[in-house]
Amino acid sequence: MIEESELTRDAFLGGQVMLWQPRTGYRAGLDPVLLAASVPAHAGQSVLDLGCGAGAAALCLGARVPGLDLHGVERQPYYADLARRNGLDVTCADLTKLPMPLKERSFDHVIANPPYFDRAASRPSPYTGREGALGEDTALEDWVQVAAKRLRYRGFAHFIHRMARLPDILAGIRPVMGSVEVLPFSARPGRAPELCIIRARKGGRAEFRLHFPHLLHRGESHLRDAESYTAEIKAVLRDGAALEF
Amino acid sequence: MIEESELTRDAFLGGQVMLWQPRTGYRAGLDPVLLAASVPAHAGQSVLDLGCGAGAAALCLGARVPGLDLHGVERQPYYADLARRNGLDVTCADLTKLPMPLKERSFDHVIANPPYFDRAASRPSPYTGREGALGEDTALEDWVQVAAKRLRYRGFAHFIHRMARLPDILAGIRPVMGSVEVLPFSARPGRAPELCIIRARKGGRAEFRLHFPHLLHRGESHLRDAESYTAEIKAVLRDGAALEF
Repeated sequence: MIEESELTRDAFLGGQVMLWQPRTGYRAGLDPVLLAASVPAHAGQSVLDLGCGAGAAALCLGARVPGLDLHGVERQPYYADLARRNGLDVTCADLTKLPMPLKERSFDHVIANPPYFDRAASRPSPYTGREGALGEDTALEDWVQVAAKRLRYRGFAHFIHRMARLPDILAGIRPVMGSVEVLPFSARPGRAPELCIIRARKGGRAEFRLHFPHLLHRGESHLRDAESYTAEIKAVLRDGAALEF
Repeated sequence: MIEESELTRDAFLGGQVMLWQPRTGYRAGLDPVLLAASVPAHAGQSVLDLGCGAGAAALCLGARVPGLDLHGVERQPYYADLARRNGLDVTCADLTKLPMPLKERSFDHVIANPPYFDRAASRPSPYTGREGALGEDTALEDWVQVAAKRLRYRGFAHFIHRMARLPDILAGIRPVMGSVEVLPFSARPGRAPELCIIRARKGGRAEFRLHFPHLLHRGESHLRDAESYTAEIKAVLRDGAALEF
């Protein structure tokens, strides 16, 4: 049992989604909300959130698009319990060892916000090609492969990650999905985008497309994050608007 | 022998470079000039231009940075002859079958502006992973591999290509180079970039970096290309300025 004193109850999408989160440890911020806003889902479709944590991405998507069948996978029992408390249907499992009932299902959408590790300081040789167990418990390419396996034909995968990991995600996508689109986010005009959403489609054959960066903050310099978001990002965070690709 | 009546003599970099080009067929435009502007070369260094055509990229680079040892490889004898007439030292060979004297050399910089084919209409399955001989005589991954082989340790490769081919180029780079930086070019603000320069370094280990798009044209709508370039692009095309990454 989780003690409520360890938790906070936080408002997302202007209060449309209320989430129990741990007072300390990983707490959902901007990224799962952006991820949820990017998915072109519609009523009656099914969604699998890989590594769902306390459920922020799936539940924000469910608030924007009514009538979705939402499911999460989370390896850590603590977060799986929290996600259930928040109202998400969750399987507690390592995503590379999904239990049979889940392996027999396919979904219209798979979403994932894999953990970000700062690998800059201890990056393995680029010659190894594949990320190992050095910095990540589950390799980024495994996230992509599991997403592709759980998608129905023509279904969409959406990932949000640091821009620095784009080549690793593209390498994972290449053998299993197509029609890749990348939506970069820059803090301010002219700044190199440090965050991106990657969309891919199972069976997709359209050309790769990089979109013009969306801006997170207004103006050229930093004031206070919360107050400086662009109108587009504010609409996503506070009103639950969709992110247009 | 090439008849001069088949040729035009065209000014690049405001007349700093004069090139014989065929009146019909492939004629260098913006792209090799941008490529040349992106290379951080300095006097005394060596440069190999793979698929050099009539020599535009190498000769524009040589005009900006005096004291370079420039060499080109071109498979088509007609273009190899033109490049020689334009003053470039050229080996006429298929880049996957370089003659031994060239295979024994290594270069500080390798540059390439591989042919762009419009594959949108006849794209092979993304599941094949590798571009075959269907649309390109030489697979894009071969260009990247040959570039890496001919580079000295810590040397730089620069490629310019359609943004749609970025995943293919990254897949080629992944096993052989690192410290990848991508400089996208958008026609106008907000438009998806359709062109990019990719920089990679042999032995590089820095994180992948996508830069904010540089704009080719001023204003929101199309007037006349030649007159509407941004100040940055004009400085590259007319004054031989460097492109800052």
